[in-house]
Amino acid sequence: MRAIVYRHGRSEPSLEEIRDPVVREGEVVVLLQAAALNHRDVWIMQGKYPGIQEGIIMGSDGAGLYNGSSLLINPNQNWGTDSNHQSSGYQILGMPANGTFAERIVLPEDRLVPTPGHLSAEEAAALPLGGLTAYRVLFRRCELTSTDKVCISGIGGGVALLAFQFALALGAEVWVTSSDPQKIAEAKKMGAAGGFRYTEQDWSKSMKKASGGFDVIVDSAGGKGFSNLVSMCKPGARIGIYGGTRGTIQNLSPQQIFWKQISILGSTMGSDSDFDEMVDFVDSHKIHPKIDSIYTLEEVADAFSRMEKGEQFGKIVLKIGAES
Amino acid sequence: MRAIVYRHGRSEPSLEEIRDPVVREGEVVVLLQAAALNHRDVWIMQGKYPGIQEGIIMGSDGAGLYNGSSLLINPNQNWGTDSNHQSSGYQILGMPANGTFAERIVLPEDRLVPTPGHLSAEEAAALPLGGLTAYRVLFRRCELTSTDKVCISGIGGGVALLAFQFALALGAEVWVTSSDPQKIAEAKKMGAAGGFRYTEQDWSKSMKKASGGFDVIVDSAGGKGFSNLVSMCKPGARIGIYGGTRGTIQNLSPQQIFWKQISILGSTMGSDSDFDEMVDFVDSHKIHPKIDSIYTLEEVADAFSRMEKGEQFGKIVLKIGAES
Repeated sequence: MRAIVYRHGRSEPSLEEIRDPVVREGEVVVLLQAAALNHRDVWIMQGKYPGIQEGIIMGSDGAGLYNGSSLLINPNQNWGTDSNHQSSGYQILGMPANGTFAERIVLPEDRLVPTPGHLSAEEAAALPLGGLTAYRVLFRRCELTSTDKVCISGIGGGVALLAFQFALALGAEVWVTSSDPQKIAEAKKMGAAGGFRYTEQDWSKSMKKASGGFDVIVDSAGGKGFSNLVSMCKPGARIGIYGGTRGTIQNLSPQQIFWKQISILGSTMGSDSDFDEMVDFVDSHKIHPKIDSIYTLEEVADAFSRMEKGEQFGKIVLKIGAES
Repeated sequence: MRAIVYRHGRSEPSLEEIRDPVVREGEVVVLLQAAALNHRDVWIMQGKYPGIQEGIIMGSDGAGLYNGSSLLINPNQNWGTDSNHQSSGYQILGMPANGTFAERIVLPEDRLVPTPGHLSAEEAAALPLGGLTAYRVLFRRCELTSTDKVCISGIGGGVALLAFQFALALGAEVWVTSSDPQKIAEAKKMGAAGGFRYTEQDWSKSMKKASGGFDVIVDSAGGKGFSNLVSMCKPGARIGIYGGTRGTIQNLSPQQIFWKQISILGSTMGSDSDFDEMVDFVDSHKIHPKIDSIYTLEEVADAFSRMEKGEQFGKIVLKIGAES
């Protein structure tokens, strides 16, 4: 079969013809129709991920066919029994286990969830890891309600956009930030109440004034700008952190945190029950994950390049062989 | 009556003979038996508190007699209706409203709670503000359970010691930090599993190794040392922040926060129902708040001086007139 395989020393992911996977007891073969990229895949290619293994098929997100049914793949492996955090044996599909950038994948049957009927295979593939991360940080960690005022920082990334769509679907008032005015304009078309460029002088003061402050903020940047998020918090606000692309957080005021009774809540991926709840939420609200672009397996290097540049608005999807 | 009154320009609190307070509709007169100092009182004397008013009687903590019964004073004013945070009109007794460093205080009757029978007047006076702060940060914010491993930073201060006593009473394993080896030794006598000096090289690595890491950490320092607390967290840990004596937090790793699913939870004082629950907890566990020292109203300047130096281990109490 054809698959995107990680090889040490290669700077670009490449398509290879490899042997079909072997099915063991309790496992099934899914014919993949589509997969989607995550930042994680780019970091693996750049060698910035723990436990990278030579010869592994990449990819955490996928959707396909098994026994004639359309199925989503739950990318969790060994979350464990505690809903509050993953176990020490937790892994994500696509490193070190073989992933979804291939024509076929072998998985335990319990990793498969029926695809909501309103989703295409490409939309379904865009959902798993980003949707799981967005769902947990918004609902389980920040306990979002429909009356909360929400800020999603760095709109355009896969998780940020899914969090944005989930919060809108719940009926919350949602604001966004970006460095790119076009992404802000795009988010407004989708329903954002407003947006601010975090590269502008005093943007957080303007945003606080315009919005009235936030009950829930979802961030994956950290860095020096994080303290601006704290200053935009209303009393009792929750800030969910699911990434740290801008490095360590500086100049964080304990006084603001304790006086406003703020909660700063770290979150990563989610449990299997978070995954099931997320798919139910997408189904019941008929949410279509925003797709930025679709590439074939042959075009995978272009897909990675687009992700690296950070220009995308939504998920970057790979279309694979199997027809539904 | 005699009272400790705040006067602009005076560097020390001083005892004055003033007129008895006037009782209005719905209010009662409490004959104070004891009061206790908080850092807040020292900050008011130093002009480092918002809304300081000339001629006000100081003091947030007090216990006394009304209608022949021993009563504790709830120092909350206008917490409001949301249990998650105080209202914008929230105030603490003792500035801007007249406080407890006096022979009499006039209060709405709903600010009075029966003193648990096992407490002396001095112990009762040591409880309100510190107990409320400790209770909320530990139980409502950090959701402490008996199986959690706990670290209380800066042991010796009023809130820290009450949090320490509450966590021990619940049956949790509790560790402490201090710059002072004598305070650590004292905490061990009271039941601490161990303690580390945060002034030592690599103290947090040693403490993590010795303890196995923490589920709950309670801190009022912040500053550069805060990131050491994060590094001692187990997955799913909660860090409660109720102060920031060492200034802004630096070099906080978002990666540690999201990967370990850590919660950083700001907390200040507590609601009226937190207060009632705290008094019930102290009553049912027969906790005796640790008293550092007892002064008369005439010795109030010495009491403030001891608080300023930070040498205390427990609450600094003022003994007042009324006999029980």
